[in-house]
Amino acid sequence: MEPGSRGAAPGGVSVSAVLPAGGSGERLGGATPKQFCAVQGRPLVSYAVRAMERISWISDVIVVVSPENIETMKTIIEKYGHKKVTVVEGGITRHRSIFNGLKVFAENEFSSHLLQKPEVVIIHDAVRPFVEEDIVSKVVTAAKEHGAAGAIRPLVSTVIASAADGCLDHSLERARYRASEMPQAFLFDIIYEAYQQCTDYDLDYGTECLHLALKYCKTNAKLVEGTADLWKVTYKRDLYAAESIIKDSLSQQVCVITNVKETLAQVGFLLPESLKSQIKVEAISISLSKNDSHLQNIISGQCYNFVCVNDKRCAIQEIQELVDMLEKSNIPLLYPVVLISVHLEVSEKNSFSFGMEDLTTIKKFARETKKKNILVYGLLIQYK
Amino acid sequence: MEPGSRGAAPGGVSVSAVLPAGGSGERLGGATPKQFCAVQGRPLVSYAVRAMERISWISDVIVVVSPENIETMKTIIEKYGHKKVTVVEGGITRHRSIFNGLKVFAENEFSSHLLQKPEVVIIHDAVRPFVEEDIVSKVVTAAKEHGAAGAIRPLVSTVIASAADGCLDHSLERARYRASEMPQAFLFDIIYEAYQQCTDYDLDYGTECLHLALKYCKTNAKLVEGTADLWKVTYKRDLYAAESIIKDSLSQQVCVITNVKETLAQVGFLLPESLKSQIKVEAISISLSKNDSHLQNIISGQCYNFVCVNDKRCAIQEIQELVDMLEKSNIPLLYPVVLISVHLEVSEKNSFSFGMEDLTTIKKFARETKKKNILVYGLLIQYK
Repeated sequence: MEPGSRGAAPGGVSVSAVLPAGGSGERLGGATPKQFCAVQGRPLVSYAVRAMERISWISDVIVVVSPENIETMKTIIEKYGHKKVTVVEGGITRHRSIFNGLKVFAENEFSSHLLQKPEVVIIHDAVRPFVEEDIVSKVVTAAKEHGAAGAIRPLVSTVIASAADGCLDHSLERARYRASEMPQAFLFDIIYEAYQQCTDYDLDYGTECLHLALKYCKTNAKLVEGTADLWKVTYKRDLYAAESIIKDSLSQQVCVITNVKETLAQVGFLLPESLKSQIKVEAISISLSKNDSHLQNIISGQCYNFVCVNDKRCAIQEIQELVDMLEKSNIPLLYPVVLISVHLEVSEKNSFSFGMEDLTTIKKFARETKKKNILVYGLLIQYK
Repeated sequence: MEPGSRGAAPGGVSVSAVLPAGGSGERLGGATPKQFCAVQGRPLVSYAVRAMERISWISDVIVVVSPENIETMKTIIEKYGHKKVTVVEGGITRHRSIFNGLKVFAENEFSSHLLQKPEVVIIHDAVRPFVEEDIVSKVVTAAKEHGAAGAIRPLVSTVIASAADGCLDHSLERARYRASEMPQAFLFDIIYEAYQQCTDYDLDYGTECLHLALKYCKTNAKLVEGTADLWKVTYKRDLYAAESIIKDSLSQQVCVITNVKETLAQVGFLLPESLKSQIKVEAISISLSKNDSHLQNIISGQCYNFVCVNDKRCAIQEIQELVDMLEKSNIPLLYPVVLISVHLEVSEKNSFSFGMEDLTTIKKFARETKKKNILVYGLLIQYK
């Protein structure tokens, strides 16, 4: 993490993002364009939008979609609570779509109100769901200094040139070349100037923004080494991979919360002990109403699994407090949060009736929280 | 499928394969080299070996592994019943390993007995599990004609060259370049000559066999457009993708077998009807002892799921016949086959005792077939 990359924009510049999402997804082999394919029930474009949106210093996120998908995109924005997004109608090629996205900051053609022109504009793909703030920050910083910057990755395969007869002409020395990935960032005036100068041929057949900045504005982009998770969903297997990566990240950590009584504290000790060989466990023993800062830290550290152990007759109030904290954190906007309320009944009686009542209450409560992407489950354990 | 690609070698040439499997898998981020990572419980290298082995016209498969993995590789060969494989100790780089693999056909250095030198040798990666006979055949045919040939794919990302200051120097026009993939094939004498001429620098820092054939033997390889499934497992996400692709292919088809009695034939009709919205269903009504050619075709068409519906007291004999057919087909060598024996008891009695006895027999039987990678399950349905 670069200094200053959280909270304030790198170098104090104003930053917005353009996400071209107009592709047809031919290589995926399906009817649905890949940016609208669901991964864990949520369209890919929503992950990419959210990845930009959660970076506090990005002001506006422009999503450029083809005319027939504008309504779909608006529905997605509504459903997943995206806040910073403006939808713009794309052109027939990638470059024309990006150009349309940029015009929102400079012309009145594509939007009823002109958005505040940013100093630096990020261009990212709707089909790269896992971009982290760190790399975005590095690319923006480099763009401010050099006028243009882009993430790169080592080549996975050797690149070769074929001759007219379909035979090998030459192969490139792999170490000298890189794959150009996203995000890229530009001083707005540079990339906008490049698009304005751009020939129809480049607008129709080019795809690489760094190339336009170089060709039309003599700006040599700074290349920033990115991480493996910048890859682009291109084929069906990439959708599988994305799905597994998300599942993996959701199940990496669990937070076990107990209140301070001794019996429960012991359960709060035993449960993490038995879980910790399989998953990272944070165990905390607090009264939720105190709004513990440790718990706040765990939540903002992207924990998606919570187990609350209590022995009160009705724990709804405590669960409600946790749900409120989670909701405020915006964490459930990205992925579902699982919250298991364990009601521990230390009793000589054999009857489950009291506990069952609580479970019914929790079930009703869970129906409400599900709309907020928080999945609440109740578990009743009676021990003698 | 090219004419003649099944059964006989393309063009009647003798063909063997070398699979370099000595990589350390650094990019995967795990301790296990990627070729030994398990996908659905089976190491990746075993899929690649099997993909070569099941092509009838490939004589020998040479797997080149680093010294510390020779025993691991031998265990894998034993466990998964690989038949055509010779294990060879690799060198410290990819090219040195491939060279060692080729020497098995030309020198006595790496094997106690010299293997029959093939006219064409295929070079394939241990981390590309899904290669089909069709592309192997095309590459071999092209190698016979041109001396060298290799599979290619369109570039996923734009390729760029960086200058010494870490800035963009130029980007390549994407349409003019291709990613060089595997399999590749060579006239044995050409690639062996190339390796013998090869400088230490090329042996240590190069990776591309097509380049060696061009540089040392002036052979311009024929480039053959491959399918998307030729991709190489490089990152952890690729393992996820491989896992999902295998699961997908295993659940694409089910074969429902009933014997010819009317009641069963009806079940054999209803079951496929209810399944066919989710999966491709083949329903056949036969007596297994007749060794039906339709069933043989279904098995060799790579069906991995079977449901046998019968009303006999003990169906073990029929199940045994099907297990024998499956075993002979070699299908279970690649992936597990699931066989569900449904015992349908049309009876007025309420007792399950007869059926339960059968289930116990099937359970014992299943323990034996499991060793052959055939998973047998018994299901008892009593209806009045």
